Amino acid sequence: MKTKLVFHTVGRVLLLEAALMLLPLIVSIIYAEGCLTAFIISAACAAIAGGLLTTLCRSDSKSLYTRDGLAIVALSWIGISLFGALPFVISGQIPSFVDAFFETVSGFTTTGASILKDVETLSHGILFWRSFTHWVGGMGVLVFIMAVMEKTPERSVNILRAEMPGHNVDKLTPRASGTAKILYYIYLAMTLLETLLLLCGGMPLFDSIVHALGTAGTGGFGVKADSIASYSCFCQWVITVFMLLFGVSFNMYYLLLIKKWREVLKSNELKYYFGISLAAIIIIAVIIFPVYESVSDALRLSAFQVSSILTTTGYATADFDKWPQLAKAVLLLLMFFGGCMGSTAGGLKMSRVVVLMQIARNDLRRALRPREVSSVILNGRRVDAQGEKQILSYFALYIAIIGTVFLLISFEPFGMETNFSAAVSCFNNIGPGFGLVGPSASFTDYSVFSKLVLSFAMLLGRLEIYPILLLLSPQIWSKR
Amino acid sequence: MKTKLVFHTVGRVLLLEAALMLLPLIVSIIYAEGCLTAFIISAACAAIAGGLLTTLCRSDSKSLYTRDGLAIVALSWIGISLFGALPFVISGQIPSFVDAFFETVSGFTTTGASILKDVETLSHGILFWRSFTHWVGGMGVLVFIMAVMEKTPERSVNILRAEMPGHNVDKLTPRASGTAKILYYIYLAMTLLETLLLLCGGMPLFDSIVHALGTAGTGGFGVKADSIASYSCFCQWVITVFMLLFGVSFNMYYLLLIKKWREVLKSNELKYYFGISLAAIIIIAVIIFPVYESVSDALRLSAFQVSSILTTTGYATADFDKWPQLAKAVLLLLMFFGGCMGSTAGGLKMSRVVVLMQIARNDLRRALRPREVSSVILNGRRVDAQGEKQILSYFALYIAIIGTVFLLISFEPFGMETNFSAAVSCFNNIGPGFGLVGPSASFTDYSVFSKLVLSFAMLLGRLEIYPILLLLSPQIWSKR
Repeated sequence: MKTKLVFHTVGRVLLLEAALMLLPLIVSIIYAEGCLTAFIISAACAAIAGGLLTTLCRSDSKSLYTRDGLAIVALSWIGISLFGALPFVISGQIPSFVDAFFETVSGFTTTGASILKDVETLSHGILFWRSFTHWVGGMGVLVFIMAVMEKTPERSVNILRAEMPGHNVDKLTPRASGTAKILYYIYLAMTLLETLLLLCGGMPLFDSIVHALGTAGTGGFGVKADSIASYSCFCQWVITVFMLLFGVSFNMYYLLLIKKWREVLKSNELKYYFGISLAAIIIIAVIIFPVYESVSDALRLSAFQVSSILTTTGYATADFDKWPQLAKAVLLLLMFFGGCMGSTAGGLKMSRVVVLMQIARNDLRRALRPREVSSVILNGRRVDAQGEKQILSYFALYIAIIGTVFLLISFEPFGMETNFSAAVSCFNNIGPGFGLVGPSASFTDYSVFSKLVLSFAMLLGRLEIYPILLLLSPQIWSKR
Repeated sequence: MKTKLVFHTVGRVLLLEAALMLLPLIVSIIYAEGCLTAFIISAACAAIAGGLLTTLCRSDSKSLYTRDGLAIVALSWIGISLFGALPFVISGQIPSFVDAFFETVSGFTTTGASILKDVETLSHGILFWRSFTHWVGGMGVLVFIMAVMEKTPERSVNILRAEMPGHNVDKLTPRASGTAKILYYIYLAMTLLETLLLLCGGMPLFDSIVHALGTAGTGGFGVKADSIASYSCFCQWVITVFMLLFGVSFNMYYLLLIKKWREVLKSNELKYYFGISLAAIIIIAVIIFPVYESVSDALRLSAFQVSSILTTTGYATADFDKWPQLAKAVLLLLMFFGGCMGSTAGGLKMSRVVVLMQIARNDLRRALRPREVSSVILNGRRVDAQGEKQILSYFALYIAIIGTVFLLISFEPFGMETNFSAAVSCFNNIGPGFGLVGPSASFTDYSVFSKLVLSFAMLLGRLEIYPILLLLSPQIWSKR
């Protein structure tokens, strides 16, 4: 690993984080809150650390290898989470550093799992910072890093590869840095549009901004103890629609902008995504209808919860932990799907699901007719054998990690349902689970060890496993 | 599909089943029990059905395609389960046919999941039949079918392929029919040896035979409500050791017999199998030590339960559902491993686990050093890319089926832990799960629909998915 170059880049990311902290600082000024100093100190710490790293670790090396890219991605996320936790601790609103770290990781990874028992006691500045981390993390470390990289396109490409070891390197793949900018504008425009619509629905300005940031990043941090439940039906529908929209690959919006409609129609990922959403919404609405005894209520609650879980956002308008078993089972399985590749959503990602389903179908066909050749199609393009194998082995690793995380937190006395759903929910960057980590509860009762394991799981899920796992390998730290 | 030839073979399997029913019939005579007539009527039914099928479906066709082999395997297992359920129903000891079918499928698939609330009320004949189905099913439909096939080796090979679509066609793969006989003798000898040892441990003759049959098939049906808990420690250790032994590939014993020690030592599957067993035994012994406060008790109970779950047998000497969460989590994960390929055990199978682990390791290596070429080794042989892909996609299908079975039985009001572990346990042919299907409980409270779904899951697991799934495809029923 090119240690100097890697840490130099991480330093630049920290400098950017220091700059980003000015926004919650402004919020604190507006509301004349005491947490103002917390942001000043935190931003100073991040700026000093970033400055030291960029100054001390100067490197003339121009080219980056894949492993360097992986290391930059992993270390940047850990770095911004460590410094991002400072405002919580310094302001005294989350006194324990581990708790604050968990909350910040949960923010940047767009998970939305919280250790807070009562979110309504937090100050506006801190609430804004929580949701802002979603927005920053949602667009991905990728653009975040591209913003701090000097103009060396060959470097960016290697970081891109690093963040996406799967076959589809489309997640925010800017063929040129111009495309990246356009994607960022789309992200910004959609966030603003949602804020406006929420304002029209009667939501206060601050709440509208915070929830739009949380939806855009498919995060899930809100400002109320009951998440979105107390807002108007109109607002709930707006958030439902925007959660689904932010779960769509941003490349699709780009294609729509440049009027390549045909390309969009070719996307079978998109068809599966909306097909599965619709099917799940109808199934759950039918299951919960006897509970609410109103078609519109059942449909609204089902649509909100399904969109929230499928896009890995994690907002809630109902305590779905108290829903009938079958509805809970459908939601648990949805946790394994995730949004589209190239969106801000986490999870396994729909394009992998599409490929896995086709592989299974082809295997069955081949068992019937050994000589038949069937191919796997993703978004109009054929996936080659190498690509199929990559996605299959990603899936195997994905399942193995859920098992491992579940095992590691199982010494907690919370029962299988709580621990298993906590592992699944954190690793897939969703937020709430079932039982004691249900939508009306929090992760506060977990031990320090489990909170660290779950933080680790969130990072693993967000960065798609490889960067974080490789950081544990002694080989990456060697010079050659 | 060559319908005539397929049904002709299924008819022969039913004739064999009729003959096998003579054994429990003899047991009924010895104990002068009323269920005698039940066995006579059931054997007659199986014989008539078998006779009709063999007579009506005559075919001159000599060659079998893979799909015909798959259909024979799937239909034979369904056929013997349907007729095998008759003694339970006719004797009135399990009045509901669906319950009796569940129990018989559980027997032949060597699962050991029971719908009986009190097994001790059953007659000796019926108890023997239950455990005998384990023994027959354990050795596999394979030898079962080979025994009824006329001497057409090329046919057998296709049935072999049908039962083992995975890359390792080693499960009882007799290179010549002579090898098959030797494997059967080993099986018989080991069963007799276990019976003798159990007798030495003070277990009554009938109990010894029944438990040896249940252990040999890695089944799990016993004769007592508390499974093995009330027998002597010596008997418990004997069963522990034999469960582990029956979880080893029978090819290993064959190789030992013909003195090819080196081949045995080459088996990394065996190393993983014993390594994982040992690690799990020690971990669980440590976890449960505070409960039992005796090293020997903790070790004995841990060893028994780990062997039982890992080899998918399902006997119990402790109500592990009441153990600490962490112990339960370890057992739940062990449910996903299974015994060695080519043993009587079910589950994912250790050789697949070995291959999957190596693939994951190689992927991580490749992410670090893209140009490095790493290969996957199983039992001294290199697994090629095609083989890797087959195992990976088997695993994906395996996980998808667990999800589907869980979803289908989730309308039951039993909670996630019960339903999820029921799905995992039945599909992996283990038997007990956690919660309401724990080792001291039964599947009796499940609805008819769920019992059929779980029966189906047991068959899917035992026959390694493809044969049963293909039976649902309309294509297999077409002539061409």
